[in-house]
Amino acid sequence: MKQDLKKEIENIAKQAKAASRSLAVLSSATKDVVLKDMSAALLSKQASILKANQKDISKAHAKNKAFIDRLTLNEARIKQMADSLLDIAKLKDPVGQLIRAWDRPNGLSIKKVRSPIGVVAIIYESRPNVTADCIGLCFKSGNSVILRGGSEAINSNLGIYNILKEVMQKHGLMEGAINLIATTKHQAVDYLLKLNNYVDVVIPRGGEELINKVVALSRIPVIKHYKGICHVYVDENADLNMAENICFNAKCQRPGVCNAMESMLVHRDVAVRFLPGMLKKFKDAGVEIRGCAFTKRIANWVKLATQKDYHTEYSDLILSVKVVADLDAAIVHINEYGSHHSDSIVTDDNRAAEKFLQQVDSACVYLNASTRFTDGNQFGMGAEMGISTDKLHARGPMGLEELTTYKYIIHGNGQIRC
Amino acid sequence: MKQDLKKEIENIAKQAKAASRSLAVLSSATKDVVLKDMSAALLSKQASILKANQKDISKAHAKNKAFIDRLTLNEARIKQMADSLLDIAKLKDPVGQLIRAWDRPNGLSIKKVRSPIGVVAIIYESRPNVTADCIGLCFKSGNSVILRGGSEAINSNLGIYNILKEVMQKHGLMEGAINLIATTKHQAVDYLLKLNNYVDVVIPRGGEELINKVVALSRIPVIKHYKGICHVYVDENADLNMAENICFNAKCQRPGVCNAMESMLVHRDVAVRFLPGMLKKFKDAGVEIRGCAFTKRIANWVKLATQKDYHTEYSDLILSVKVVADLDAAIVHINEYGSHHSDSIVTDDNRAAEKFLQQVDSACVYLNASTRFTDGNQFGMGAEMGISTDKLHARGPMGLEELTTYKYIIHGNGQIRC
Repeated sequence: MKQDLKKEIENIAKQAKAASRSLAVLSSATKDVVLKDMSAALLSKQASILKANQKDISKAHAKNKAFIDRLTLNEARIKQMADSLLDIAKLKDPVGQLIRAWDRPNGLSIKKVRSPIGVVAIIYESRPNVTADCIGLCFKSGNSVILRGGSEAINSNLGIYNILKEVMQKHGLMEGAINLIATTKHQAVDYLLKLNNYVDVVIPRGGEELINKVVALSRIPVIKHYKGICHVYVDENADLNMAENICFNAKCQRPGVCNAMESMLVHRDVAVRFLPGMLKKFKDAGVEIRGCAFTKRIANWVKLATQKDYHTEYSDLILSVKVVADLDAAIVHINEYGSHHSDSIVTDDNRAAEKFLQQVDSACVYLNASTRFTDGNQFGMGAEMGISTDKLHARGPMGLEELTTYKYIIHGNGQIRC
Repeated sequence: MKQDLKKEIENIAKQAKAASRSLAVLSSATKDVVLKDMSAALLSKQASILKANQKDISKAHAKNKAFIDRLTLNEARIKQMADSLLDIAKLKDPVGQLIRAWDRPNGLSIKKVRSPIGVVAIIYESRPNVTADCIGLCFKSGNSVILRGGSEAINSNLGIYNILKEVMQKHGLMEGAINLIATTKHQAVDYLLKLNNYVDVVIPRGGEELINKVVALSRIPVIKHYKGICHVYVDENADLNMAENICFNAKCQRPGVCNAMESMLVHRDVAVRFLPGMLKKFKDAGVEIRGCAFTKRIANWVKLATQKDYHTEYSDLILSVKVVADLDAAIVHINEYGSHHSDSIVTDDNRAAEKFLQQVDSACVYLNASTRFTDGNQFGMGAEMGISTDKLHARGPMGLEELTTYKYIIHGNGQIRC
């Protein structure tokens, strides 16, 4: 039985590798036609998706509201998935793009050209729209994809997958180009992560436990889409009005997402002026505050924060607050407690801003803006696989370009090395 | 005792991380002055390096000639190391380079800017010059470095390292910026590879065993510098004279390096015209040939190749040869047996060339040129860390730019998300 599963996963990976060779040479025009057909198929067959989704929801009744909300599909959400595939069709195909070209004194002409990575595996939790988005992005960038969604969404994921696979078949495209691991056995992932001969990269999207497991087991290069512990630092020279708007937006506009603020840092010299109004505004919006001793002195209803709080991604209406001695202390705190995702400074002092932007070691660093803008669409890159919290290959929003590698193509006329 | 070593390795990694924050903001001018001083110090203290090197050589007497040659330092080789540091000083500093800048309709201004990766660990074998090269490249690109050389070169590596470290100290730079693990205990590497909180990337340079061990154990992202099983394919429409020159150069000009040809593929229709002269030329140069049945029919002194031969990097005057049915068979063979390093086609047929260059899945693909050009200097990139056989982050020659990541720096004036 175990051997069967191992063989099955290996076969999926092998077929994905074989298909990736044909995907790599598919024309942009063909890919875009298929993407448009995929989009149309999701809409025309939405009844079957909704039915499958109902199965998942009925199993999830014991879970909390936010969980069920993330899992639930409806007509509007299916329309969003379909629109996203149309958007991907409109994006420029990165495959074959010339990154740089130069000639060498010996007459060799070198071109650095974008090419697909090969086989991309994605391990994700809950939201079923990820299934359609990742298939669309990997297909457009010429990569085979192996999807492994969470067991809680298995019926919805399969529903979406089967519709898109049928479109691929109709166009005579190779079986192995898009794959979904249908078993919910967790050993399937263990096996997959050893197949570095066939799979070129694995992208885990989810909580700490999932990410740590993948990193510990994988022989395949991993691009982590890890948690977002994002900070806003209110500097001594901040426009406090602007700071209040930015902090409120970063926390409350959509608290469940990775680019929401989890921790607010405030310069000691403005804390007494800034915090009372800010904290009241949060309280009125139902935000639970966990603050340092200084914060608690200003508002005694505040819960005292532990070290663990500063390490926590709440993904909820909870906020940790710390009053810091100066800019340096803020930078040290963010680099120590943050997740290198998105961090913002509010200040009118250019020198403080420059220092913060340079020394905070995060994918996205903001001056006088909400952290909520870290997002492929907001950056103008189009749809995204997610936000990489790694530093290698892709950092921050990961779109089509980040799903490619490059190769050097060298034209000669008989050159040999002396 | 084990706990002591673990603690020691963890301290090195922690100090490297702390130092990386200061290195990241060091000016190019300061870095270049330090690099020039390092270069001068290697020359003025070469006696101590040569003495340390003698210790290593005296322990290596039982090893083969090529091994001892790689290990040996002399005045000329120390001069090369010193020159390489001067070259690195002359290269453009990648840190802070603007990759792209754009504005969003909401007034946000986004800059994508190169920044150091942080802490780079390098695990390498034999040649002691790697010690100086890697210190120079990591320092210039603003990264802390942790070196772990082979036990066979430990005295030479320490000799070089101590001289360069003294220069760093003289300039008041942080202790942890350059590090060498002085113990030869292999557990040191096991501990190091778990420290993903402090080390951002590990680059293993060496044989199959070393690479596999690192990939299996590491929780840190790995950029593999793996073996080079490079091919030249002689097409049916090749200029056979040119093909003979290219193949001879790719195999014989320096057989011990990773971009040398290990396997020659010949189209069936030109095999009878091409192989007799080519094989004789190789034989006269002392190259042992391991060929397919077809090859053996042409020259009966040829040894019959096994499957294993086509998977082997000889790094020596040995060559595997295979006659193939057509271009497609050549491409399939290279993608299956090669190491995705460097592969060349010799042909006058543009369509065959295009197909080969597009479909061969290697870092460097050549038309009518020797594979020996895959090299940072030959590409005009300057000194290199080595040749990445991975697809993520860095592929092919890995120079200063590949030792950086990027961050998004976003300037706003109060933007919040709606």
